[in-house]
Amino acid sequence: MLDWLKGYRRAALPGDVGAGIVVAMMMIPQGMAYALVAGLPPVAGLYASILPPLVYALFGSSMTQSVGPMAIVSLMTAAAIGPLAAPGSGLATVLAAQLALVAGAMLLLCGLLRLGFLANFFSRPVMSGFTVGASLLIAWGQVKALFGASPLHPHLPSALLGIGSLVALVLARSHLSKLLHRAGLRKNLADVLSKLAPMVVVLAATALVAALDLGTQGVAVTGPVPTGLPRLNLATSGEHWRALLQPGLLIGFVVFLMSMSAAQTLAQKRGEKLVSNRELVGLGAANVASMFSGGFPVTGSLSRSAVNFAAGANTPLASVLSALLLALALVLPTGWLALLPLPTLAATIIVAVLGMLELDTLKTAWRYDRADALAWIVTFLGVLALGVEAGVVVGVVLSMGTLIWRASRPHIAVLGRIPGTEHFRNVDRYAATTCATVLILRIDANLFFGNVESVTEKIEDELREHPGARHLVLTMTAVSSIDTTALFALAELNASLRTRGIGLHLAEVKGPVMDRLRASSLPDVLNGRIFLSTAMASDHLNEQQGNHR
Amino acid sequence: MLDWLKGYRRAALPGDVGAGIVVAMMMIPQGMAYALVAGLPPVAGLYASILPPLVYALFGSSMTQSVGPMAIVSLMTAAAIGPLAAPGSGLATVLAAQLALVAGAMLLLCGLLRLGFLANFFSRPVMSGFTVGASLLIAWGQVKALFGASPLHPHLPSALLGIGSLVALVLARSHLSKLLHRAGLRKNLADVLSKLAPMVVVLAATALVAALDLGTQGVAVTGPVPTGLPRLNLATSGEHWRALLQPGLLIGFVVFLMSMSAAQTLAQKRGEKLVSNRELVGLGAANVASMFSGGFPVTGSLSRSAVNFAAGANTPLASVLSALLLALALVLPTGWLALLPLPTLAATIIVAVLGMLELDTLKTAWRYDRADALAWIVTFLGVLALGVEAGVVVGVVLSMGTLIWRASRPHIAVLGRIPGTEHFRNVDRYAATTCATVLILRIDANLFFGNVESVTEKIEDELREHPGARHLVLTMTAVSSIDTTALFALAELNASLRTRGIGLHLAEVKGPVMDRLRASSLPDVLNGRIFLSTAMASDHLNEQQGNHR
Repeated sequence: MLDWLKGYRRAALPGDVGAGIVVAMMMIPQGMAYALVAGLPPVAGLYASILPPLVYALFGSSMTQSVGPMAIVSLMTAAAIGPLAAPGSGLATVLAAQLALVAGAMLLLCGLLRLGFLANFFSRPVMSGFTVGASLLIAWGQVKALFGASPLHPHLPSALLGIGSLVALVLARSHLSKLLHRAGLRKNLADVLSKLAPMVVVLAATALVAALDLGTQGVAVTGPVPTGLPRLNLATSGEHWRALLQPGLLIGFVVFLMSMSAAQTLAQKRGEKLVSNRELVGLGAANVASMFSGGFPVTGSLSRSAVNFAAGANTPLASVLSALLLALALVLPTGWLALLPLPTLAATIIVAVLGMLELDTLKTAWRYDRADALAWIVTFLGVLALGVEAGVVVGVVLSMGTLIWRASRPHIAVLGRIPGTEHFRNVDRYAATTCATVLILRIDANLFFGNVESVTEKIEDELREHPGARHLVLTMTAVSSIDTTALFALAELNASLRTRGIGLHLAEVKGPVMDRLRASSLPDVLNGRIFLSTAMASDHLNEQQGNHR
Repeated sequence: MLDWLKGYRRAALPGDVGAGIVVAMMMIPQGMAYALVAGLPPVAGLYASILPPLVYALFGSSMTQSVGPMAIVSLMTAAAIGPLAAPGSGLATVLAAQLALVAGAMLLLCGLLRLGFLANFFSRPVMSGFTVGASLLIAWGQVKALFGASPLHPHLPSALLGIGSLVALVLARSHLSKLLHRAGLRKNLADVLSKLAPMVVVLAATALVAALDLGTQGVAVTGPVPTGLPRLNLATSGEHWRALLQPGLLIGFVVFLMSMSAAQTLAQKRGEKLVSNRELVGLGAANVASMFSGGFPVTGSLSRSAVNFAAGANTPLASVLSALLLALALVLPTGWLALLPLPTLAATIIVAVLGMLELDTLKTAWRYDRADALAWIVTFLGVLALGVEAGVVVGVVLSMGTLIWRASRPHIAVLGRIPGTEHFRNVDRYAATTCATVLILRIDANLFFGNVESVTEKIEDELREHPGARHLVLTMTAVSSIDTTALFALAELNASLRTRGIGLHLAEVKGPVMDRLRASSLPDVLNGRIFLSTAMASDHLNEQQGNHR
């Protein structure tokens, strides 16, 4: 904890200060926009951007992660509290804070139980399909705010402001960095400054609203923002708590997935070490802190963390500075925030989620592994058809489904001897000689509940194809583990082969696997022997057969 | 389909006839008892024992599976329809038939989509913990019927009949087979005949009720049973259908799990082949048939199928005969069924589920693999605390959890050369020599989304421990597959190592893995080479280093 502070070097300071300022400027429009996505007053997004990153800096293990509101988690928040409270209402604010507490408590518990491996429940194609689907849902949800009304019958001043902001942001996204670079800035600095476009567009739009008095002409604005820091209020019914339990668990899971995926991407760039159990604790504490400050569920965001990284952040001090700057903004006069036009915020949301619409993963998977591509497509359609919460469940089921499906098609090779050598190879790939009475199979997978029935079936298939076999040798070079289910299956195979008069032998069992097997009764009841090498098994059994004849 | 009939040999007939008669005698009390567990009139259990096995004989692939009511599936049926209809009511009967349709349609769909690998979603310890927990719930649910009232204030005639039946059944279970064997019967025949004890006890108890007129003294009996075969009635509301959807999916899943586990045990004893996709279709069709005949969800039962097997069943003809005998029993006068005492049926249920209380799996897992033992215990407690439906979900989550947890601790070995040879071995287990600039790691697992982050982390740890390494060689002998997630991770590792000036090389990549990799861009961008053997990689890189120095 706070290792980064104890060993803080002065050389890291300029980068941290610069990144802190840039991220704060990025967080103001983003936080307010994502609060709108969550169905909350925009100021809640600022509340959620102060305490959580400070607390994360205490417990988390990533140097450059920026914790705060994030589009997909906000969408899930809206899905959870939508059925219980009107968007923007006081109750919605209270429920959102409760939801952060549920998610945070769950994450803390998982961290204390050291369940960091939970981050591995989503395959990358599933994660990508989920993200793209959720991004489309988020963008679609902002269309009405962008036009001030239905896009078919737009409110003209709102639509002009919204579309104008959208065009400005899209142009900034595609050209601003290049322009700044051409104007003489270093490429990296130009990149980072171009990320401030949303803040500039929001300020310009707010100025326009003030100058033209657009608020009175029907352009929706955020309205008065309370000065100062928020108060805690969790006085809702037990029924509300119960209703938030399941969404809170799902949100906690997604918070962890999104944050880990962002943090890992950045940690790898600098060869830094990430500790998943500490991430669970850091994110859990950050969400509990969000509850205390009237915020809503927060997570690490790849887009914001990447800016933090690129802007030179060396340690969590950058996030601490960002948080302090935001707190400062809240205690200063906040009157100008009241005039911030919602169509412009909608435009910032749409442009932000456009950046998450990547199809590279789908393309690569399509070329490399059709099953993974199918998982992408089904997750994507699942999110669109069933919503983002059900989409998480669909994603886990598909990740596990592809895993078990692959496991259920294990590779097993019939081995033969390369003449004149001690080497045994797959007879399908090499000119190797076999013996009718001794069938040698190499199992190319760890044995566990997901593949053991298929392995047993394939072994039986091979025995049917080699009816003369009196001995079966399993070569275990590729088997690094055997779970309890597989242990039972081996014992049952052994019993079945014994009644059929076929010997079962093992060869080349790895050290750790053998250590485990010794703790079971299998070696005692084995209807055959355990050989050090396949060649020794083959020699011994052939000799024995010869003697019998 | 019907292969067994086309190739039917006369020699198989005596066994099939004998088994058909025995299983029919077993099914009458069992079917009625499990209908009570499901909260249905006992006769529904007979209905569910006629059409389903006939239809399964058409489509299924197991030769000896006996499809019909089963305790755990009946408990799940009760859990699903309990909140919607009073036990034993007409609505309950209709909803149970609907539930069979939902489960059956789901199974048929999975069969058509060839999702037979779904049977591999439960590890054996989880399955065992689930079964034991559900058995206790079932036994507990019968205590009141056994005593005719609360066990603290029992209804004396009912309690005497119930406890008397229980004692008779327990004694028969433990001693009858031995007695019959001592009386001169063959051991196998004695075993099979002892399984008819429930039928004998039920007949005796019914005779006792008739003789002593116990029905008028308050002993609960099944009451009048309609003669003839049932009629179909599915006229319920859309809301009912929606409420049955999720339980129906879970029941379909458990139907498949239970049936496959029973069928596999028996198929292996005779070296017969089981086709999981045909099992899905057979079980799906059987459940749809159960709906048509006023039954409820059915599955293959290990206890009944084992009797079928032991009684000499050679083909599904045995099940066909059983079903015909049961149908005959229903069109004959059924008046005697009306006097069947419920305390005796409760006793048959309790004794039947006692047979499922096996702790061997837990004991073996405890000695062999503590994580699997923990999964057993948590599933068991989950079923008791949350009920049998939530227990299924807990079971899947734990099976997958142990899998991903294990995957997140992959084994990676640092390799060194055994001096004077071409062999490279784990430096922790062998006296092998390494070189400071070339780090050689062997990855002992298939690379997939569940372990790839851990593998990357371990690689980074090793790089930190070998700061002088300019080349990293990954030896892929144990890697039989690389999924899309792992492909991306390798590409990212490659990019990161490139910026750090470290070469990434692969060695001993298996044929199928290499075929796959060629379809990706990894070989083109690899910051190093792919070597045929570790020795070649080591020689080449050391030589290159030497030249550089």
